[in-house]
Amino acid sequence: MVAELINTGTELMLGRVLNTHQHWLCRRMADIGYPITRQVAIPDSGSAISEAVRESLSRAELIITTGGLGPTSDDITRERIAQLLAKPLTLDNATLDRIQQFYRVRKIVMPERARVQAMVIEGARIIENQHGTAPGLAIQVQPNNVRPDGKPALLIMLPGPPRELRPMFSESVVPLIKALLPLSDSFVCRTLRTTGLGESLIQERIGDDVEPLVSAGLDLGYCCGPSLVDVRLAARGTQALRMVADAEHIVRERIGSYIFGVEDDELPELIVRLLTERKQTLTLAESCTGGFISHQLTNVPGASVVLPAGLVTYSNAAKSTFLHVKETTLAEHGAVSEAVAIQMADGARERTGSDYALAVTGIAGPSGGTDAKPVGIVFVALAGPRGTVVRKYFNPYDRQTFKQMTAQQALEMLRRELLK
Amino acid sequence: MVAELINTGTELMLGRVLNTHQHWLCRRMADIGYPITRQVAIPDSGSAISEAVRESLSRAELIITTGGLGPTSDDITRERIAQLLAKPLTLDNATLDRIQQFYRVRKIVMPERARVQAMVIEGARIIENQHGTAPGLAIQVQPNNVRPDGKPALLIMLPGPPRELRPMFSESVVPLIKALLPLSDSFVCRTLRTTGLGESLIQERIGDDVEPLVSAGLDLGYCCGPSLVDVRLAARGTQALRMVADAEHIVRERIGSYIFGVEDDELPELIVRLLTERKQTLTLAESCTGGFISHQLTNVPGASVVLPAGLVTYSNAAKSTFLHVKETTLAEHGAVSEAVAIQMADGARERTGSDYALAVTGIAGPSGGTDAKPVGIVFVALAGPRGTVVRKYFNPYDRQTFKQMTAQQALEMLRRELLK
Repeated sequence: MVAELINTGTELMLGRVLNTHQHWLCRRMADIGYPITRQVAIPDSGSAISEAVRESLSRAELIITTGGLGPTSDDITRERIAQLLAKPLTLDNATLDRIQQFYRVRKIVMPERARVQAMVIEGARIIENQHGTAPGLAIQVQPNNVRPDGKPALLIMLPGPPRELRPMFSESVVPLIKALLPLSDSFVCRTLRTTGLGESLIQERIGDDVEPLVSAGLDLGYCCGPSLVDVRLAARGTQALRMVADAEHIVRERIGSYIFGVEDDELPELIVRLLTERKQTLTLAESCTGGFISHQLTNVPGASVVLPAGLVTYSNAAKSTFLHVKETTLAEHGAVSEAVAIQMADGARERTGSDYALAVTGIAGPSGGTDAKPVGIVFVALAGPRGTVVRKYFNPYDRQTFKQMTAQQALEMLRRELLK
Repeated sequence: MVAELINTGTELMLGRVLNTHQHWLCRRMADIGYPITRQVAIPDSGSAISEAVRESLSRAELIITTGGLGPTSDDITRERIAQLLAKPLTLDNATLDRIQQFYRVRKIVMPERARVQAMVIEGARIIENQHGTAPGLAIQVQPNNVRPDGKPALLIMLPGPPRELRPMFSESVVPLIKALLPLSDSFVCRTLRTTGLGESLIQERIGDDVEPLVSAGLDLGYCCGPSLVDVRLAARGTQALRMVADAEHIVRERIGSYIFGVEDDELPELIVRLLTERKQTLTLAESCTGGFISHQLTNVPGASVVLPAGLVTYSNAAKSTFLHVKETTLAEHGAVSEAVAIQMADGARERTGSDYALAVTGIAGPSGGTDAKPVGIVFVALAGPRGTVVRKYFNPYDRQTFKQMTAQQALEMLRRELLK
């Protein structure tokens, strides 16, 4: 199946915004068995849109466009595609009603230009927009139109704002694609998320055992992030479900303790969920991660219940004032040491009365390293009902990667403790 | 000038990674006057690369590819393009020496496969890689080759890792493009970064005055982020420099106090620089932003010198324990109140002895709002040598946007105080 994605937007071409649609849609399409084979971004001006759609129609059975369906003058996707397909645009009264209702509820006068969003290309289905005004459109392009190869194609137009596009895609577009372009073979995809083992070590541990499945057609892929490796298992055909299940069984048997989740799971969400279920609390004491762990956890709704406090204690004085780290320990071992990490965790736990405390102290760089304590060194301490433990890690990377890896390692220490 | 960007990588097509190259390169290219007119992403398998390059050659005078120059079996960009251009690949000894040296310095045995990175397409220039092994390549494609229109094109191949690509681009590729494809007209671009005014208010304040310049050819654009509007001024031709300077003068006259920086400036960098210059310190007391402001500031190298501590005090108990907020104030006004914000800031400043303290308390949502204090309400207090001030903001958006807007507002309060 040739499936292509066309992102429109001059702000993309000027490098003003990140193309998150590409990332999000490619991930979803791959996971349902329709990987995008080509993605194109073009400005929303001139003839770029018609040219890009015409080219895609010459190759692809499935084409998704994003952007250009709104009410302003640079929203020209709908018109350009209607022209290209030589189909008229007609006003859809039910859609106009919904758009008027959208403005009425918000007590805003509907601008005249907003009516254009109720125009529908002849023969297109309307994909309702629950979170905005512009509906999506889906049209089956017949071979007698602009298709050179005599095969029909499915062309789907989605609005640009992610909060509108994402629910429309999940709720309406996925079922539509599956109904109109059924896969000839069944497709199964499973992602296992691991932390704590490098890609090559994982390959070493599981490679030989999954090899027969790979030879039989299993698609085994790795994707690495900071202190993170996703193991992606995918297969097509009548045996797909069994093959992926067998592969998952092998991976779990070999490296199960390193798997923290599946699909889109993230460690911060998992930690907040585990603590919430147990009605337990966590306090953070961060030095070199500078509040990043706290930021990650507080991105999760409901975090305030399980996280009474997080302390970013950069200076020695702050470590003593807020965490009661002893000045003699700081003088004797230095701020970046096992002993100080332990006292930070113990102090944080004691001062808030929380069930657990995580403390990190290290050297994020680029400066501040020494031969004995080079840039990248970090101590992570975990205090809890069963006592306090400390581990040393070495993350000699740029500041942001250092923070991400250290946060992942610290949260993983807590995950393992919570699941003991 | 038609300029196209081709990003290769199967991980892009599976939606495993964000395409940051597109964002970064499009921004740089636009700012030097060569905006990318089309960007394409394709998998690094099969014939997709040769097809995409062939198509781009039929349209563009300038083509940049990213990825596929490394030593592994899916790094096929170099070979596929050599085939397409019908040019041989030959080993470049100086490049091989550099690659061998790269491994020797790191005390790693060079894998045999790494040699392939020293292969050069006949007629190509080598773009040295100071941060990795694979050099970039630049080749002028002659019309007698695969160009249908009889015009030569410049084809530039860059390696995938951002920490290799970015310095190569800035140091070597920009001068090369300017030398080999000089713009017929001079081009000037200037971005003014503002915070605190919405896009429509900015348009209202500057629109009439810049209108004559826009009519004369000035390109005026706005790009909005959370509590942020970039005003982009660009012009071509002999009058470009004067037009952009005149426009900047008008914008600064009308909304100068809202401009915090130019080009890629960010508020956290600016705050760390201002505090460093003045040898002053800042303590943070965050509730609803959950450590995000602290995280942003500590992303800046050198932040540890000016930021002794950041306190994330979610619970009332933590506000009392660490910031000495009075229990009576919490009981009387609630945690989300002017009175508590002021006590948080005063407490943070007093307890660390820092010159300034910023405190935020609000309701990030999605739950926790009331009629009197709805989701999105936030109080920001700033304590400093000149006393303590507090402001109320309303940011009724999702959690992440709420954090970003509030952080921007808090740092802007401090910027204005520091520049008084």
